[in-house]
This record gives sequence, C-alpha cells and structure tokens, in this order.
Amino acid sequence: MTLTALAGTPLQVIQEAAEAAGLLFPLDLGARGTCQLGGLIATNAGGTQVIRFGMTRNLVLGLEAVLADGTVISSMNRMLKNNAGYDLKQLFIGTEGTLGVVTRAVLRLFPRLPSKCTALCTLASFADVVALLRQMQTKMGDSLSAYEVMWASYFDYVIEHVEKLRSPFERTFPLYALIETEGTDSADDTERFENALGSALESGVIQDAVIAQSEKDVQTFWAIRDGIAEITPGLMPYASLDVSMTVTDMPGFVEQIDKALAAQFDLITNLVFGHVGDNNLHLFITTGVESDIDQILDTVYKITGDYQGSVSAEHGIGTLKRAYLHYSRNDEELELMRRLKRTLDPNGILNGGRVIQI
Amino acid sequence: MTLTALAGTPLQVIQEAAEAAGLLFPLDLGARGTCQLGGLIATNAGGTQVIRFGMTRNLVLGLEAVLADGTVISSMNRMLKNNAGYDLKQLFIGTEGTLGVVTRAVLRLFPRLPSKCTALCTLASFADVVALLRQMQTKMGDSLSAYEVMWASYFDYVIEHVEKLRSPFERTFPLYALIETEGTDSADDTERFENALGSALESGVIQDAVIAQSEKDVQTFWAIRDGIAEITPGLMPYASLDVSMTVTDMPGFVEQIDKALAAQFDLITNLVFGHVGDNNLHLFITTGVESDIDQILDTVYKITGDYQGSVSAEHGIGTLKRAYLHYSRNDEELELMRRLKRTLDPNGILNGGRVIQI
Repeated sequence: MTLTALAGTPLQVIQEAAEAAGLLFPLDLGARGTCQLGGLIATNAGGTQVIRFGMTRNLVLGLEAVLADGTVISSMNRMLKNNAGYDLKQLFIGTEGTLGVVTRAVLRLFPRLPSKCTALCTLASFADVVALLRQMQTKMGDSLSAYEVMWASYFDYVIEHVEKLRSPFERTFPLYALIETEGTDSADDTERFENALGSALESGVIQDAVIAQSEKDVQTFWAIRDGIAEITPGLMPYASLDVSMTVTDMPGFVEQIDKALAAQFDLITNLVFGHVGDNNLHLFITTGVESDIDQILDTVYKITGDYQGSVSAEHGIGTLKRAYLHYSRNDEELELMRRLKRTLDPNGILNGGRVIQI
Repeated sequence: MTLTALAGTPLQVIQEAAEAAGLLFPLDLGARGTCQLGGLIATNAGGTQVIRFGMTRNLVLGLEAVLADGTVISSMNRMLKNNAGYDLKQLFIGTEGTLGVVTRAVLRLFPRLPSKCTALCTLASFADVVALLRQMQTKMGDSLSAYEVMWASYFDYVIEHVEKLRSPFERTFPLYALIETEGTDSADDTERFENALGSALESGVIQDAVIAQSEKDVQTFWAIRDGIAEITPGLMPYASLDVSMTVTDMPGFVEQIDKALAAQFDLITNLVFGHVGDNNLHLFITTGVESDIDQILDTVYKITGDYQGSVSAEHGIGTLKRAYLHYSRNDEELELMRRLKRTLDPNGILNGGRVIQI
C-alpha cells in the first residue's frame, strides 16, 4: 500500500489519490491545497494526526533527491523493513533542502477506517489534562488520533473574536481538550468512547464534555481549534511560536513564560494551544508593539531551552529561527550539522542561510 | 512516557523496567535476554511487532553517540516532535556502529494494553494471504500487532521435526497465518476478532482457523512460528536469508526462487516464513552441501534485486552481506554511503569492514 508522487504534487492531490484507492494518506494540515510533497518532506511536516501516524518522516518509505553536485540519489524503497546499508533518505527529510533537493517519493498508505468519535472536554488543571491523556490512551488504544489542548486564554479569545463560533459550555474553564478517535466499528467505538469519557467525568478528571453528534458538531469543535487562522490578522503584530517539551513540563513552562513576560511588559496577550499528545505547544504572543517581538521570542526560546525543549517542534528553522537554534542544540550537534552541510554542499548552493551557516 | 538507558542495557531489562512502570517497550525478539540496546540501535532491530510499532528507529527519541574523533554528540531529545535542525540520531541508527558508537538513548514507551487475541489460520493461496491482511487491517484497525505467514514447506517441516509440537489442523494447507491483535477491551475485542475471522471463513478467504482459548494456545501457536530456532541445528549447513519486497511480489518471488534453485540443485530444502505485514521474508535453504551456500545466496539475492527488494530486511549487512549490497542499492547510493563514512570516520577506525569499505 504505497503511492509514488513527484515533489511538486500538492498534498490534497495525494490525499485524494489515496482516497480514490480506498486508502488513507494521513498527513493533513491547513495548507493542504497549496503545500507540495517536496516541502512537506524537506520540513518533516507534522499536522493534526501525529499522535497516531507520526510526522512526515514516518510516512516516507523512499525518495529520490538531487545532490549539490548534480548526482541523482534514487532511493525509492517501497518496504517497511529495509536494513540494506545506511538509510539515506533521512539526510533529506527535515533538512529543509540544505543537503539535497527531493524530487520524488514513495509514500506509505493506510487503511481508511470508517468510524470517528470526537469530543470537546473541559478540565480544571493541567494535571487532569495529563491524566485524561493517559486514560484515553489506555482505554482507546491506538485509535486515539487527536489530543488537542487549548488554554482558556486561547479558547476564550477565539470564542469572543470569531464570528459565528459559540462555546458549547455555559461557563469558562481553565483548559479544554479536543479529543478524536478513529476505529473500525461505529457502534462499538462510540460506546467505548462514551464509557471512557463517562468514567473521566465521574472521577472528576474532566469537568464537562460534549460528544459530537453530527459531522456539523465535529466541524464546530475543529473550527474552535483552527480559529487561530481567523484571529491572527487582529493580533498583529505578534510573535508565533511552535515549541515542544515533555508533557509534564508544560504547565510549569506556560506559567514561567507568563511570569517572565509580565515582568517585562505591561500589557500582554499570550494565547496557548497545542498538540499536547505530541509534546507540541503553539503560542501567539503580542504586546501590540512590533519592536517588542524580538524580546518576546528570545524570552520564550530561552525558557524553552531551560526545559530542554525544542525551539521548533514542527515548523523548522529556516532563517528566522537560526539565531535561536543554540537554545535547543549544543555546540557539538551544531558542528556535526555543519560538517554534514560541508560534505554534501561544499559551495553552499542549496538553500543558503537556512538552518545553519557553514 | 520515555525511558533513558545506557547502551549496554539488555533488552529484557528495558522491557521489565517499562512493565514495572505499567508501560510497554514494544521491541521484542528471541535474544531479549542477551542483546543490548546499543546493538539494537546500531542494527535498527525489527522483531515481531513492527507492523504496529515500527522498527527500533521509531522507538528511539534521542541518543548520545561518540564520533571517531572522540566528540560526544549528546542528542537526548525526549519529544515526539522536534524539527530544530538536522535529526542527527538518524546517522547512528541502523549504521552498524560505522559512523559512531551509541552510548545512551531515550526510548519511547507505550500504554500496556490488556487484551490480546491470537489465531492460526490456513489459506489456499497467497492471494488469500493478501486479502486476509487487508481485511484484518480494515476490521481490526491499528490493533493488528502480528501477521506472520508460514509457507507449508516451513510449517510441515517444523511440525515433523520439533518434538512436542502438533498441528492443530487435521490436514495440511499451502499457507498458514499467525494473527495477533492487542486492544483495550477483552470481550469487545474478542467478538470483533471472531467476527472478522468468521466472515473471512464464510467468504473462503481462509480455509480454517483456530482461535487461542488460553495462554497455552498462544504459546503453542508462537512455538510453531519460532520453531526455526529448534530445527536449524538439523538443517546445517544452510543459507539463512532475511529479505524484503512488496507483499504483492512475494508469491512470484518465492516461486522464482524455487524454480531457480531446482534448476541448479537436485535436492533442495527451502523453508519460507516471515513478517508478511512488514514486507519481510525469512528463507532457510539447504542442499546439505556446505560449498553450495555461496551459490544459493547469490541466486536468491540476485532475484531479490530483480524485484527491487532488500537483501537485508532487518538483520543488517555486517561483513557477510557486503558483497550482495549492490543488488539492493545503486552506485550513487553506495558512493553517498562512502562519502558519509569518509566524513565521519576518515581513518576507518569504527567497525571496519562492515556495511561498506572506503
């Protein structure tokens, strides 16, 4: 169950080709109509289903790439298992085009599962967010396909600012979790899902929950999660961050960020949400003043480094985050990256200035 | 849910530490008591649960390695998502210690699921093996944790030669599949598993099936699959092969191997089984004559190359398969491997002679 595509193929075309064959290509993100396979591979794109399927790296079986000297590396493996020599495709996945240009790839497809359950839950504390994640993983097994958490800062802001969006809850809560599972049997899965949430409600791990009863409900829940796209114009100028850390570090991290920013700025908005099941938080921070952005970024990335987190969970480094890379990677790692770059692109002709400088 | 371990830690110690925390480290193979984490990472070990959890590469979040020049690369990432610069750990996973020596690693743990279903099925054709795999993937979703297929050559030989092993079937069949699922709810999962096999039986995709009713049944079914360890002494001298190819290519491949060997040797035993769900076949081939082995290996590896398969699915290349690597990797790939080796180990002091020669 594989699909071979050229690097210029848009993600949506790949998704549709898989669907036409009765199968699933599980990578999905908002830019599906315009983003291309080559870029998805170069940035090791994440998206909303990483908790179940992994990032792009896990979905690429083989690829073809052109090196700086013009050599075509055709490594179009189609097998799940292949330990015949070095796994060369890893050189080109997530290296942002700096070691070679990906031209084609063999992608892994999956069975398309017929049943989906979606719920929006409210929680009193981050400890409950962790407890609920563990409970859902244990009770729903591998079928857990999304575990998206929104802090009240983000949830309330979206509800207030996006027209037509209403909260399904009568009051506000400190945290919200959007949970989704995908399975094989609709009746069975729904019962299991309801039981899991029911016992979380009884034990006080969640405060309230709304289970989607229709595709319209599903879309409404996701519209809240995806509402960021609608509110960013009104937030400008803002700092957009995409960081990762262990789940247990998250509440301390968010608290420390808020404290550090409050000490530096009088008026600050910090909207936090993320793919908590994948260790990934997104923060949108603004003081309303353009010239504050660099200071905000440096504050947050430094604290991210203190937590041994990553300054880029899924968006990559490019040129904008190169100055912060040292918060997440040590000198020896950076030198090894440079050594690889010098070996494969000695004249620096491939995507110069991105990730590292030689 | 991570665990940090030194490279010298035996797999079984890691499995037991995960279990003590109520979690699962899903890598498992026969040598669990003696094999060490460093070797598992260096060889990107596979095992019996790859269909659900991937190979060792998928289970390592971060690692520490020592380069040939003594530099310690500490890349002890603990997050599922981290796109902050090149993913350096890939240089040391599956490269057989030729680019650096792994000293520590951060491993990914999973929830331990309480329910397991196991069945042994008989099939009339390889087309049915493929159809059953697709049906089980669709009906059991991600819970499918093993899909092991035994050709009659292997199954009959094991039943005949391993004392105490009896076939649960009254007659022989062309193919046998050992299927296992792991889930969250024993009663539900069992019903779903029985229904899936029931409909496969009704539609003629399987000829017969025995569902394990006890842990003893489970052990018996796996003892047939693992019987190879007991029969190899009696097979000596033999060629042991570990190849991979697309599932649809498998029947043609096995047929062509049998034909090619029959044309060269009068008396030949070819026992075939494998992790079909992972594209991986194991072949044990003997004519009883030691000096025939090289010719057998060359015949099989050449045909593997013709099918664009891999001469090493999970066992690696080492020194023994170096001469056959070119059947699976082209000149440009081999030269790129050498370029990496020259960059990271210019004096050839790391595991010299393995995988490639500079």
